[in-house]
Amino acid sequence: MRILILGGDGYLGWPTALHFSARGDEVAVIDNFAKRQWEFEEGIEPLLPIVPLHRRARLWRKLTGKHIEIFVCDLLNHHLLYRVMAEFKPEAIVHYAEQPSAPYSMQNRNNAVYTQQNNIIGTLNVLFAMESHCPDAHLVKLGTMGEYGTPNIDIEEGWLTLMHNGRTDTVLFPKRPGSIYHLSKVHDSGNIEFACRTWKMRATDLNQGVVYGLETDHTAFNSELRTSFHYDDVFGTVLNRFLVQAAIGQPLTVYGKGGQTRGFLNIHDTIKCMALAVDHPAAPGEFRVFNQFTEQFSVNILAEKVRNAAARAGIAVKIDHLPNPRLEAEEHYYNAKHTKLIDLGLHPHLLDDATVDLMFAAVRKAKDRVDPSVILPRIKWHSGGDRIAAGHEAV
Amino acid sequence: MRILILGGDGYLGWPTALHFSARGDEVAVIDNFAKRQWEFEEGIEPLLPIVPLHRRARLWRKLTGKHIEIFVCDLLNHHLLYRVMAEFKPEAIVHYAEQPSAPYSMQNRNNAVYTQQNNIIGTLNVLFAMESHCPDAHLVKLGTMGEYGTPNIDIEEGWLTLMHNGRTDTVLFPKRPGSIYHLSKVHDSGNIEFACRTWKMRATDLNQGVVYGLETDHTAFNSELRTSFHYDDVFGTVLNRFLVQAAIGQPLTVYGKGGQTRGFLNIHDTIKCMALAVDHPAAPGEFRVFNQFTEQFSVNILAEKVRNAAARAGIAVKIDHLPNPRLEAEEHYYNAKHTKLIDLGLHPHLLDDATVDLMFAAVRKAKDRVDPSVILPRIKWHSGGDRIAAGHEAV
Repeated sequence: MRILILGGDGYLGWPTALHFSARGDEVAVIDNFAKRQWEFEEGIEPLLPIVPLHRRARLWRKLTGKHIEIFVCDLLNHHLLYRVMAEFKPEAIVHYAEQPSAPYSMQNRNNAVYTQQNNIIGTLNVLFAMESHCPDAHLVKLGTMGEYGTPNIDIEEGWLTLMHNGRTDTVLFPKRPGSIYHLSKVHDSGNIEFACRTWKMRATDLNQGVVYGLETDHTAFNSELRTSFHYDDVFGTVLNRFLVQAAIGQPLTVYGKGGQTRGFLNIHDTIKCMALAVDHPAAPGEFRVFNQFTEQFSVNILAEKVRNAAARAGIAVKIDHLPNPRLEAEEHYYNAKHTKLIDLGLHPHLLDDATVDLMFAAVRKAKDRVDPSVILPRIKWHSGGDRIAAGHEAV
Repeated sequence: MRILILGGDGYLGWPTALHFSARGDEVAVIDNFAKRQWEFEEGIEPLLPIVPLHRRARLWRKLTGKHIEIFVCDLLNHHLLYRVMAEFKPEAIVHYAEQPSAPYSMQNRNNAVYTQQNNIIGTLNVLFAMESHCPDAHLVKLGTMGEYGTPNIDIEEGWLTLMHNGRTDTVLFPKRPGSIYHLSKVHDSGNIEFACRTWKMRATDLNQGVVYGLETDHTAFNSELRTSFHYDDVFGTVLNRFLVQAAIGQPLTVYGKGGQTRGFLNIHDTIKCMALAVDHPAAPGEFRVFNQFTEQFSVNILAEKVRNAAARAGIAVKIDHLPNPRLEAEEHYYNAKHTKLIDLGLHPHLLDDATVDLMFAAVRKAKDRVDPSVILPRIKWHSGGDRIAAGHEAV
């Protein structure tokens, strides 16, 4: 199949490209290296250095004989995007190419506007480019479980059949997200559903949980094929951050009470889910939604899992509760359905002790590269315009 | 009260400014005259000429002694917007300053992206500017009943209390809008709700129905104080368009079967609703939604009302059914609640025969200015990028 990966330089985009390339698909990636710039803005680095995309693709070709084509393209440059679609004629498009950090989007007005503009307009351009050049292609779009927020009812997979005043309808599941970034994903979902309904396009929206893990089978093949791993307060996700805090002997910092419950999945399963979605495309006109995670945990449970792994490795680690920089419920009902990917054949990698131990050992090996000054939360949700990142205007 | 009107040059913004100014409020308006440019792009004009805003404001001052301050500002220019907020320190902000046409947004990629960027980012800038300079001000934002689409259940005012699997929650009413423009309003609503929740701002989202009418008490005061009235396929709303078709003896063009049912209101009631919302502000942290219309009609019923008014004036008019350029249900359930503004004291102007006759007489007086070539629908929903307006790129 001809598969175009948007955001192919990233944590998930790169291993996804390797996966499809390894199994014989014709793979091209698009990236504009925006994430590399955000790292400089925030003064942060991945735990281990990531060589440039072009070099990784050359190495992959040398090792496997397989070619991954690279298009350097900003999705806001629609002229170029249309040309890529016309030239490569993808049958599936996997779309990771968005600003993915809630704290980044909440840093100040500039980053909030950048996030919504980049994500919403970039995705609109993808939809129009597809409609013009490959209207039968299947869009597989990375969304987030954070689009739903934490409602007091069970979270269904994208659609909800409800009864109201004696009548019934199936509606888009009501969303109530918790950051400007999460809102951008909700807005994307609305725009994509409209394109499916109006232009008979086919799309799968993957409401993904929080991903953990350092590597996949293919990135582990050679150290220069590795993918990025962030532990900082802006791009680091919670389990990855706890592992790094434990590795350097710092307390694990839980935000608030720690009863915040979310869906989680192993990076191995992200890749598997992408493949399942691509191999079982949505029908023309269908806006299909999968909740892409394998287990629910509270932040407190995750902290305990990491503390226990550290203890097994002979390291005593404390758990601290910080004032919550975010505005979110810290104790709440959470029951999100996630059966559709299982029905397609997903066999989850669960977060057992052996998995935590393996990740912890890998992080410990790199602990001398950790910058402890970028782990504690610097960005707070409660005000809207007074935080300046280096190189950024105040508003 | 100090009231800032965003979009003060427009069909509704100008009469709103006059209303508050006349009763003694301190009024300033913002506009960037974008609508004047869209008119040139589309080759259309209002039914009667509208003098420049500065001249209208001078005339108003001469006639009444009352000053309306004008800030020429694009909401995308956040530096200037922040300065306006800091200088004028509004207590209420009435926000009409968006691209308001569904067909315009569906014309091609350029207009789709322009509409979402202009509306979403402009409103984000308003939220951040308020948070910085007047966080206690009340935002009264013009939304649209079109955000809801046509669900098979009763439409509530913004929020829905529902039961699912034995549990209950109150959620944002699920939306399923029918154009890129309508989507932009849904996205605005999500962003504003977040600002209320996170920054304790106060906002009222007015999901307005389709407005009809040529004038208000204050715009009728002098012919050069009049507000714009569009009858073309891009900016003309359905009843206004039918009145013009009847006035020039053309058939009334119903799109499809004509069972499309929507909420409608008289422009007099729009102004009254705005005043009621401003005078009864939302509480800090409250995202309040009013469904702002007074009566539901199908398009067929409206066509009959206009045909009957023309018959009473001695003009025989036919009703034609055209292939629908839009993608929308043409026969559907529709029952939208609209009690909150009534509870605040709205006494609706209903669409009785006398009202239609008065509007028809006013339109007939101007019939020599009608351009019959801009009335039939030119913009179709079914494809995404192949329509070029003069001066616009194809994509």
